[in-house]
Amino acid sequence: MTKLMPSWLQSANDPACPFPLNNLPYGVFSVGDGALHCGVAIGDRILDATGLEAAGVLRADPDADVLDAPYWNDFMELGPEAWARYRDGLQKLLAERADEVAQDACLKYSVPLAEATLHMPFRVSEYTDFYAGKHHAVNVGTMFRGAENALPPNWLHIPIGYNGRASSVVVSGTDIRRPWGQLKGPNDEAPRWAPCARFDIELEMGAIVGQASNGPISVDQADANIFGYVLLNDWSARDIQAWEYQPLGPFQAKATATSVSPWIVTTAALAPFRCDTPAREKELLPHLKDTGPMLYDIDLSVTLQPEGGEAHEISATNYKEMYYSSAQQLAHHTTSGCPMRVGDLLGSGTISGPEKENRGSLLELSWGGKEPLEVAPGIVRSFIEDGDTLALHGAAHGEGYMIGFGTCTGTVVPALEDLD
Amino acid sequence: MTKLMPSWLQSANDPACPFPLNNLPYGVFSVGDGALHCGVAIGDRILDATGLEAAGVLRADPDADVLDAPYWNDFMELGPEAWARYRDGLQKLLAERADEVAQDACLKYSVPLAEATLHMPFRVSEYTDFYAGKHHAVNVGTMFRGAENALPPNWLHIPIGYNGRASSVVVSGTDIRRPWGQLKGPNDEAPRWAPCARFDIELEMGAIVGQASNGPISVDQADANIFGYVLLNDWSARDIQAWEYQPLGPFQAKATATSVSPWIVTTAALAPFRCDTPAREKELLPHLKDTGPMLYDIDLSVTLQPEGGEAHEISATNYKEMYYSSAQQLAHHTTSGCPMRVGDLLGSGTISGPEKENRGSLLELSWGGKEPLEVAPGIVRSFIEDGDTLALHGAAHGEGYMIGFGTCTGTVVPALEDLD
Repeated sequence: MTKLMPSWLQSANDPACPFPLNNLPYGVFSVGDGALHCGVAIGDRILDATGLEAAGVLRADPDADVLDAPYWNDFMELGPEAWARYRDGLQKLLAERADEVAQDACLKYSVPLAEATLHMPFRVSEYTDFYAGKHHAVNVGTMFRGAENALPPNWLHIPIGYNGRASSVVVSGTDIRRPWGQLKGPNDEAPRWAPCARFDIELEMGAIVGQASNGPISVDQADANIFGYVLLNDWSARDIQAWEYQPLGPFQAKATATSVSPWIVTTAALAPFRCDTPAREKELLPHLKDTGPMLYDIDLSVTLQPEGGEAHEISATNYKEMYYSSAQQLAHHTTSGCPMRVGDLLGSGTISGPEKENRGSLLELSWGGKEPLEVAPGIVRSFIEDGDTLALHGAAHGEGYMIGFGTCTGTVVPALEDLD
Repeated sequence: MTKLMPSWLQSANDPACPFPLNNLPYGVFSVGDGALHCGVAIGDRILDATGLEAAGVLRADPDADVLDAPYWNDFMELGPEAWARYRDGLQKLLAERADEVAQDACLKYSVPLAEATLHMPFRVSEYTDFYAGKHHAVNVGTMFRGAENALPPNWLHIPIGYNGRASSVVVSGTDIRRPWGQLKGPNDEAPRWAPCARFDIELEMGAIVGQASNGPISVDQADANIFGYVLLNDWSARDIQAWEYQPLGPFQAKATATSVSPWIVTTAALAPFRCDTPAREKELLPHLKDTGPMLYDIDLSVTLQPEGGEAHEISATNYKEMYYSSAQQLAHHTTSGCPMRVGDLLGSGTISGPEKENRGSLLELSWGGKEPLEVAPGIVRSFIEDGDTLALHGAAHGEGYMIGFGTCTGTVVPALEDLD
């Protein structure tokens, strides 16, 4: 297990700090009414990457100001060699032995994290959501089709996915308005138009495509094309979904919003935490076979905080519970020739674990509302209530340090009133 | 029925010309190695809208060069009043009575259509495909689920749709490579990895969103937000789809490519051809109810041309066969709060008519391959063969003129060879 890389910035060396020198995640920030800049989290500060570039202290590209933008897409376009070179440059500036000139530049071009507003760290080109966690698929399949038919026949052969709406992806902290939709219970004669009554979360990781492709690519190439990861909450309207999803899949049930954590944690930072997918229950066809450890050991949890109350953990799981890696998902995504672009976002699918307390959605935690969850004494939930704040938390744990993601949080606000 | 608006450009007055003064569709063109410019089709020429703007002859926005771009998105952003003003300006320049100065400017800033290469007329923000033609839904449902269960229970209540891949949308004329995919016949033990053997077209119209929205909008507002229409061929790998589409819908089966015709025909040009949707079989909920004629009477047809052979018509239908209008589809798309952006593309769904010769896909024309189609003597097809060129044609017919779309064509080239 790798150890903490010490920094002269003491706050980065605290074992409880999510942003040590080993991490260096990429975000976009502003202070007050200032412009949006690219930033790098380190300890309790944000390094102003746009400012460092303009000052000539650290450039990603000698010829273009790729960080003079309110997103990291242009930087991603540069490719893996530039990503590694830039990370190396950051570590030199921030390492314990950095000289005074470097330290002064970093202090000049940085702000306290606590004073910054965080924005979407990248421009989402397109968004795809998968269904590639087996515990989740079995739980949901059992609820809807019975234990015998829980897993669809294709599930062990391809990572099932569907296209979502990039326009609905928002950064952590954005309020989420409860949607309206057509709802129809199994005993209703006809559907009605009403606010969603079964609004839910899905605890996921999001992989960000950092290199374009045009045609089928291998799992190895797919792994190399992934730039980094975020926490991702795929807000889901279960009652809208139940009525709409046959035969062509979820549509409006998933289009209200998808929240992502504000920091892109790079695959470089996560490299020490690579791990294998679980044992295959059926051999995969060669084009999707595992070729190395491409999952990551990342501890994940969900908290629910009722309006005016405290946050309570309702689930804890780990990204290594996934059956398919993001590399396999991306490779599958390209099989038919589908062009992929920088900024494409791939949701992993809900990451539930084997036990009840590891379930990554309220649908599973309350078993479709049949077993309401006691969040804390006197606080019971089947689905989300207005005013609830749901937050995802994630970190990989090394020796004396962690690679944190920042939280992915959203408060559910009441549905619009005038849509009857 | 409206009549031809005569132009001093004689070729535009030919009743067989798809681009009379009544039409004025928007595209993007280049000549030789020249830059991509915005253009307007008129008769046998393309007016150089980028050049006219730069010369100050006709500007869409007094303050910004919105046409100095290889797409019409910035123009669309300006909104309906600017769209009307610009169209009015074009008609003044091109009308029979235009003065010599106007005529000289138009001749100076235009090129023969025959010499131009046409490109994507707009940047696709996101792409959604619907399933809103009833004849098609009944045909496909009958094949897959039997006549009793042909229409899903939700079909008469909401326009069923799913998100597609904007990155896979290409302009007419682009070759389409037969995809690979996982295929599994009903009697196969396991899936195999092979080129698609049931590659197909879907004859559709594409509506282009010209104004952004952020929250639920009415059918009337949706109608006003649509900028124009293109012909759209949603290339479909039926065997890939059969294996992948349960439970979350089509994914790779629809991601190889979607072709669109090169000219955006505006809703202004189509206004005389507005018509009602067919009689409702079940009353729609108020938020989706028809509020006026929002379909269009557009004749559509499909030709198939084998490699080295002639083109043969294999289907003829009309856009008015749709059960839901694009305005209803767009309104439904926003119900959950889904933000829509300028450049979003909505495929209507396959437009089949009531009779066999009106079917808009080979899947229906050959009834899943059970009744191969005799395209011409000695030419039989169940699905597309390599080298086949499939073309969609469309026009609305007025008195002595037509509103043409240009063809939407694509040749299917063999699958890659090295993917075993």
